[in-house]
Amino acid sequence: MLRTHTCGELRLSDVGKEVTLSGWLQKSRDIGTIGFIDLRDRYGITQLSFDEGRNKPVFDIARTLGREYVLTITGTVIERTAKNPKITTGDIEVQVSNIEILNESKTPPFTIEEETDGGDELRMKFRYLDLRREVVRKNLELRHKVSKYTRQYLDNQNFIEVETPVLIKSTPEGARDFIVPSRLNEGEWYALPQSPQTFKQLLMVSGFDRYYQIVKCFRDEDLRADRQPEFTQIDCEMSFVEQEDILNTFEGLIKYLFKEVKGLDIPNVPRMNYDDAMRLYGCDKPDIRFDMQFVYLDEVAKGKGFGIFDTAETIIAINAKGAANYTRKQLDELTEFVKRPQIGAKGLIYCRVGDDGSLKSSVDKFYDQEALQLWATACKADKNDLILVLSGDLNSTRKQMNELRLEVGKQLGLRQPDNYKALWVTDFPLLELDEESNRWHAMHHPFTSPKPEDIALMQTDPGKIRANAYDLVINGVEIGGGSIRIHNRDLQKQMFSLLGFTDEQAQAQFGFLMNAFEYGAPPHGGLAFGFDRLCSLFGGSETIRDFIAFPKNNMGRDVMIDAPSVISDEQKKELGVQS
Amino acid sequence: MLRTHTCGELRLSDVGKEVTLSGWLQKSRDIGTIGFIDLRDRYGITQLSFDEGRNKPVFDIARTLGREYVLTITGTVIERTAKNPKITTGDIEVQVSNIEILNESKTPPFTIEEETDGGDELRMKFRYLDLRREVVRKNLELRHKVSKYTRQYLDNQNFIEVETPVLIKSTPEGARDFIVPSRLNEGEWYALPQSPQTFKQLLMVSGFDRYYQIVKCFRDEDLRADRQPEFTQIDCEMSFVEQEDILNTFEGLIKYLFKEVKGLDIPNVPRMNYDDAMRLYGCDKPDIRFDMQFVYLDEVAKGKGFGIFDTAETIIAINAKGAANYTRKQLDELTEFVKRPQIGAKGLIYCRVGDDGSLKSSVDKFYDQEALQLWATACKADKNDLILVLSGDLNSTRKQMNELRLEVGKQLGLRQPDNYKALWVTDFPLLELDEESNRWHAMHHPFTSPKPEDIALMQTDPGKIRANAYDLVINGVEIGGGSIRIHNRDLQKQMFSLLGFTDEQAQAQFGFLMNAFEYGAPPHGGLAFGFDRLCSLFGGSETIRDFIAFPKNNMGRDVMIDAPSVISDEQKKELGVQS
Repeated sequence: MLRTHTCGELRLSDVGKEVTLSGWLQKSRDIGTIGFIDLRDRYGITQLSFDEGRNKPVFDIARTLGREYVLTITGTVIERTAKNPKITTGDIEVQVSNIEILNESKTPPFTIEEETDGGDELRMKFRYLDLRREVVRKNLELRHKVSKYTRQYLDNQNFIEVETPVLIKSTPEGARDFIVPSRLNEGEWYALPQSPQTFKQLLMVSGFDRYYQIVKCFRDEDLRADRQPEFTQIDCEMSFVEQEDILNTFEGLIKYLFKEVKGLDIPNVPRMNYDDAMRLYGCDKPDIRFDMQFVYLDEVAKGKGFGIFDTAETIIAINAKGAANYTRKQLDELTEFVKRPQIGAKGLIYCRVGDDGSLKSSVDKFYDQEALQLWATACKADKNDLILVLSGDLNSTRKQMNELRLEVGKQLGLRQPDNYKALWVTDFPLLELDEESNRWHAMHHPFTSPKPEDIALMQTDPGKIRANAYDLVINGVEIGGGSIRIHNRDLQKQMFSLLGFTDEQAQAQFGFLMNAFEYGAPPHGGLAFGFDRLCSLFGGSETIRDFIAFPKNNMGRDVMIDAPSVISDEQKKELGVQS
Repeated sequence: MLRTHTCGELRLSDVGKEVTLSGWLQKSRDIGTIGFIDLRDRYGITQLSFDEGRNKPVFDIARTLGREYVLTITGTVIERTAKNPKITTGDIEVQVSNIEILNESKTPPFTIEEETDGGDELRMKFRYLDLRREVVRKNLELRHKVSKYTRQYLDNQNFIEVETPVLIKSTPEGARDFIVPSRLNEGEWYALPQSPQTFKQLLMVSGFDRYYQIVKCFRDEDLRADRQPEFTQIDCEMSFVEQEDILNTFEGLIKYLFKEVKGLDIPNVPRMNYDDAMRLYGCDKPDIRFDMQFVYLDEVAKGKGFGIFDTAETIIAINAKGAANYTRKQLDELTEFVKRPQIGAKGLIYCRVGDDGSLKSSVDKFYDQEALQLWATACKADKNDLILVLSGDLNSTRKQMNELRLEVGKQLGLRQPDNYKALWVTDFPLLELDEESNRWHAMHHPFTSPKPEDIALMQTDPGKIRANAYDLVINGVEIGGGSIRIHNRDLQKQMFSLLGFTDEQAQAQFGFLMNAFEYGAPPHGGLAFGFDRLCSLFGGSETIRDFIAFPKNNMGRDVMIDAPSVISDEQKKELGVQS
């Protein structure tokens, strides 16, 4: 018997019991003839005491033990003289009568503490030690909780979890596939799924009605910070539904998760269409924890002789409430911020509203108090507010102002990670034009249905077609999205043709799906949430890597196991491949 | 609104309600001026009625519809005159006032019925239609239930589900890996995991204490019937445990699943060590739904002048209770059965016990009544029993007799799929000798710990070492197994060396694990269950393919999507591979 209790379990009511505990030596110290060890396991920390007078052999052993040794001890639970209210076992300690060293440990390369001295690379190489840190373990415990309650909710809603295959077929659309040579079918390759999209649609054709899966997906992309080549999705699909049914079902899921995982009641999730999101926030995933919506000053700021504004396609302002006290230096820094190449603005105009309501702008030469008052009125600016203005062509200025708004929001403390604001963004365009190739691309994916009332535009003005597509955005982060799908063979063919597929290409790649549509496909739709992202959001972190047990680095490497790696020529020969 | 109710929902208490239903046309028929349609969805079937006199336009539409059309109807629930007790909605029907065709359907290539006319290949090509059959859908619903209750049990036992990576490192040990070229690390390859073995052990080193995962695994093997290149495991590991803790925990899981999924209370699972299993049943996964244990006749049957027995290493009998009425033809067939090349016996000796206790054998020339009585006594044979005897070298005879026992058990109706008998087989040998290479192989895997009392044999007699390794067997099917692992670096090194690894090879392939053992690895062990197999067992089927939504055929092909497939030269070039 290696333990009678865990290290997080003993209380005052256990005083007097003889217990056996196992765990890791977190730290040890001596006070003269009394030694102490903090013994740690997943469940907590229990203080052990060693009394030289009472049991010298055990006391002597205890003094020799290093950090992270694995021990099994037996002893008696006693009440502590100096209680520790910070830990759940802080009322007691165990007076040790017997100790066994189960395993020794070299000194770890970094400290196993909440704040460790280990750098990122070292911690990844020794990830198994990094995972011992409570803060990292808690992240994975949170992840487990999110998946558990996700399943609980969906099970209760009659969804069935169905596993779809991992070894599938490569399709050149979308991101790059990871591929796998087939030994039994030489010269042919499997691909790993970027998502189970076509399979879940086939399950709807099969009448499964409500499907979900928490599933690994794969994308061979150039890895930016916070992208992983393998990632996890909550993948869902429903039949005989309209967009509203899907939004309501998954709004329910999100509310349930906030309640069960975070103990928070969140209100109904507001909805905003894509056009409004772009107009008011300059992006399709607005952070609505704070207002600071865009105000278009074109009507009130043009024609006053300020050439930059006069020649701009648009002039956009935001009102940073109460920020009139920004110093010249802070404003210069904001100007530098928007002028960085990643953002690309030419400059930043501001106008302060003083204590007394007077207006002071960086373009006073062109705008008198009366002219500036029109800005202030448009921006609903009060005393002590700061108006920030950018101008240029519409798309760029919106993008730039979005960045500026988020930065100012952060500076003003309006983006607290524990304040959660969810939003549905709806009515996305069906297509976007790829400027380089001058070809239409599916904004969501090629299976997304145009809104029925916009189908006629497929012939005339494809860029104007709206889709029944929607994203869930929380705190400015896109958690996931989905759409109502095409369930009609002819419409699907039209869509592929619009995307530049020949009939032969469409048939070769997606023939099985289009054929399936000929045998009574029901109306259906669904969505997918990024599970890693959702967990990091619940954990109040911006880094999904912190919520993955064994993540890969930006080169797609697992530095702990050293993968990928070179394989033997024999192995390659057997597979009929070379590299 | 596409439906107010599902097709499995309406009851007598709903009579009078106006409802909207959606689903597939299962079948239709006319009786003069009344038409009937059975409308099907996942939840059931509802009868629709169309009255020509009441609503001619709708009646006329209904007559034109083919099988598998997708419909939305509105109508009034009425009580049926001729009730159908076979379906849950059999008391009512819906008198249709409005009908909408959501999608048409070509005539399916096979009937969507419990007993279909579609052959295996056709059903796989149109798997999305095959999945519409209730019997197939029920299998996947069962699978969902098994995973749900597995998670429920393990969650309640404080296990944490942790996702381990899919893109890992290739190790030449064991079965063949599927491999994936890395674009970002040209010339290097990932491998898909055959199991998360090393990762779950690292999680134990990390202090996760209790881990599980329901996880896809991959093996590039030549596919026998009922093997899949990708399959699913219930994978578990525990720290600070001994074998007994693990057996008890997972016996609990199996009992819980039988209770929740099948409504069955199964008794405590008996245990049998490997040596006994081989001795009494000639295999390490005995079907203990019936006795018919091996009886060794060496002492009583040798030395009577029957050369075949006299020169045999061993003589093994089984007693087929009540089978003395086997005809000559049946016995000849059994003889042919054991002489098939896959089994390889030279012949079969039998001895019938008559109504009157008289004994009649196929070797009466050598054995008189008295001599045969010794066989009967050894076999505890009564009136009307049939003794079957094989002889030869020990290992082959055991294997042959195992096959014969199972066949006779089947013929006698002793192997009913709904009679469940579970068994732990324990104390497996650590190693087995590969005759061809004359090298030791790990019977379980190289991380399995020898029994502490047998460690000394590593130097002297490796074949004799027993491991703390165990399999769970239900009805003669190996559901899974596991072991107590090595957690000491030196012992692990010794084990690799015994398996013929050089230190360099061991370090290159498993260095991360052996290094981890230097930082305080706890004693740990675990197991894995074959999830597909477990589901098929609960479903009373021998075919795991029936419990996989989109299975592959014996060549590893998905014939529905046509994968694997040829990929473009461009794609290969980008990955730096050729095939």
